[in-house]
Amino acid sequence: MPGPRARPVPEDRVRGCAVPSTLLLLLAYLAYLALGTGVFWALEGRAAQDSSRSFQRDKWELLQNFTCLDGPALDSLIRDIVQAYKSGASLLSNTTSMGRWELVGSFFFSVSTITTIGYGNLSPHTMAARLFCILFALMGIPLNLVVLNRLGHLMQRAVHSCARRLGGAGQDPSKAQWLAGSGALLSGLLLFLLLPPLLFSHMEGWTYSEGFYFSFITLSTVGFGDYVIGMNPSRRYPVWYKNTVSLWILFGMAWLALIIKLILSLLETPGGLCSCYHHSSKEDFPCWRWRQGPHGEPESHAPQQGCCPEGLMEIRHHLEPSTQSAGCGMDS
Amino acid sequence: MPGPRARPVPEDRVRGCAVPSTLLLLLAYLAYLALGTGVFWALEGRAAQDSSRSFQRDKWELLQNFTCLDGPALDSLIRDIVQAYKSGASLLSNTTSMGRWELVGSFFFSVSTITTIGYGNLSPHTMAARLFCILFALMGIPLNLVVLNRLGHLMQRAVHSCARRLGGAGQDPSKAQWLAGSGALLSGLLLFLLLPPLLFSHMEGWTYSEGFYFSFITLSTVGFGDYVIGMNPSRRYPVWYKNTVSLWILFGMAWLALIIKLILSLLETPGGLCSCYHHSSKEDFPCWRWRQGPHGEPESHAPQQGCCPEGLMEIRHHLEPSTQSAGCGMDS
Repeated sequence: MPGPRARPVPEDRVRGCAVPSTLLLLLAYLAYLALGTGVFWALEGRAAQDSSRSFQRDKWELLQNFTCLDGPALDSLIRDIVQAYKSGASLLSNTTSMGRWELVGSFFFSVSTITTIGYGNLSPHTMAARLFCILFALMGIPLNLVVLNRLGHLMQRAVHSCARRLGGAGQDPSKAQWLAGSGALLSGLLLFLLLPPLLFSHMEGWTYSEGFYFSFITLSTVGFGDYVIGMNPSRRYPVWYKNTVSLWILFGMAWLALIIKLILSLLETPGGLCSCYHHSSKEDFPCWRWRQGPHGEPESHAPQQGCCPEGLMEIRHHLEPSTQSAGCGMDS
Repeated sequence: MPGPRARPVPEDRVRGCAVPSTLLLLLAYLAYLALGTGVFWALEGRAAQDSSRSFQRDKWELLQNFTCLDGPALDSLIRDIVQAYKSGASLLSNTTSMGRWELVGSFFFSVSTITTIGYGNLSPHTMAARLFCILFALMGIPLNLVVLNRLGHLMQRAVHSCARRLGGAGQDPSKAQWLAGSGALLSGLLLFLLLPPLLFSHMEGWTYSEGFYFSFITLSTVGFGDYVIGMNPSRRYPVWYKNTVSLWILFGMAWLALIIKLILSLLETPGGLCSCYHHSSKEDFPCWRWRQGPHGEPESHAPQQGCCPEGLMEIRHHLEPSTQSAGCGMDS
């Protein structure tokens, strides 16, 4: 049983809520995927067809120019080149050290593995390296999460102390917290998503929107690998650039994880998907118990309706840990 | 303040602990990355050099066979082919529908985006699709986390009810929980990591170890994209195969997330990195308060030394949520 103030929740009510909401959740998930499928198909399908057609035209022109190549020979050449490209061999005479299994490339690969970005511009090919990669990721991913948690926590504390200073300067405390919270959101947006593309466009020759796309795809750990920094052999990359990018990845991931957590907590409020507890009295489900999830598991962090009903509370809960506590902020 | 039983923690002690442990943590993180860098460099560097050398040799042979091609022409051809390959055009006459921006490919891309696997075998190229991709991921990643949390929770409940049934059958309750917990670990290992490679080797023609590597890299959401299912144009893929793989990804990710959470909670015990609370009395830091982290934030879920000292407790805490509660399992 969860604790001294909690009363047992009838098992049937928990079950009765969990099953339909799980079904609803899966339906919403499938609908969301269907939406994505449709939009990507509509947006990319035509462009990809055009690109494929233009490549086929280029191929025919090439066959006409180089009369010694026939269709099958060119196809087998293409297959060889794609195979060699996928296996990370340097196809052209000049490649950057980031694109090879040298010191910098190996470090970059290690970072992209434990952060689960996984660009895939390099991937291990020997059996020993693959086995090591699995073990390395198995311990490295949790270690990376510990570091991100710690950094996120330091950021939260900085925001909190900022809010306290604002409050001390004669501001209304709740207004000071709002100011500090939205200031943190905006400065993170500026520092981690809006300014870095300027650096990337200067150093890599990308457009601003390409740099923004790369920034988001990297920090969200999706990491398609269509854009990777430091891979253009015709450019010189200073040492501070790679170090700055490493720090940007680390702090930016911690910041974006906070934002995603915030959206997660908004999605997980029961008003959205599971509404059968709505009319329960507060006495039945004491506030601090809700904080620990309906089954008492301490990792659930979604504030529940009836405890902290405003979306504002969730934002404060994520940005000011020291004022948001098990008492649901009753004291603040 | 956290709640009725908690006493204020002196701010200095909290600060004094957080800063050196953060430094230690970052040092450990860097050391871990350095280890990875060294091992990958040693294991892959030589193999990549060999592969690069053999490709250069092939290129020279090709130049000798096809006398109409000169060095620069071949280099520019290679550049074109790699560019076209990266932009997802179907280079050869036959590609599978998974590798194109058609219905199946778009669905697969949507899944790989919101799960943050990000294989990168397909990536959007129009500005509109990239912008939509960012918005889609921003809402989709939290939605996917909600679904994974729910599935993980259902799995935990299944394990718990299994333990209860074992306990009801005359087994010692703690032994029954151990049995159910390790049974769940082993059956997950079998179902999500050891058996699927057999299916992949049958359907894709990979070796068992390639399939195992693909399984881990996919479920951990690293997703290099060096191996992607359904991409071999010379094979026929039945419909049930793609559906089975989708279910495998969903449940396997939920299972591996539980395992990674478990390792995370073992890494986050203060005995490892932050030891200045060790000699505090239990009275100073009541058990349930520890459960909510040193700053009262409810999302911290690492059991702390002095509360639940055995690693066993963490395993049970992750596998049996209903018996592990705010009372630190005192009741079980």
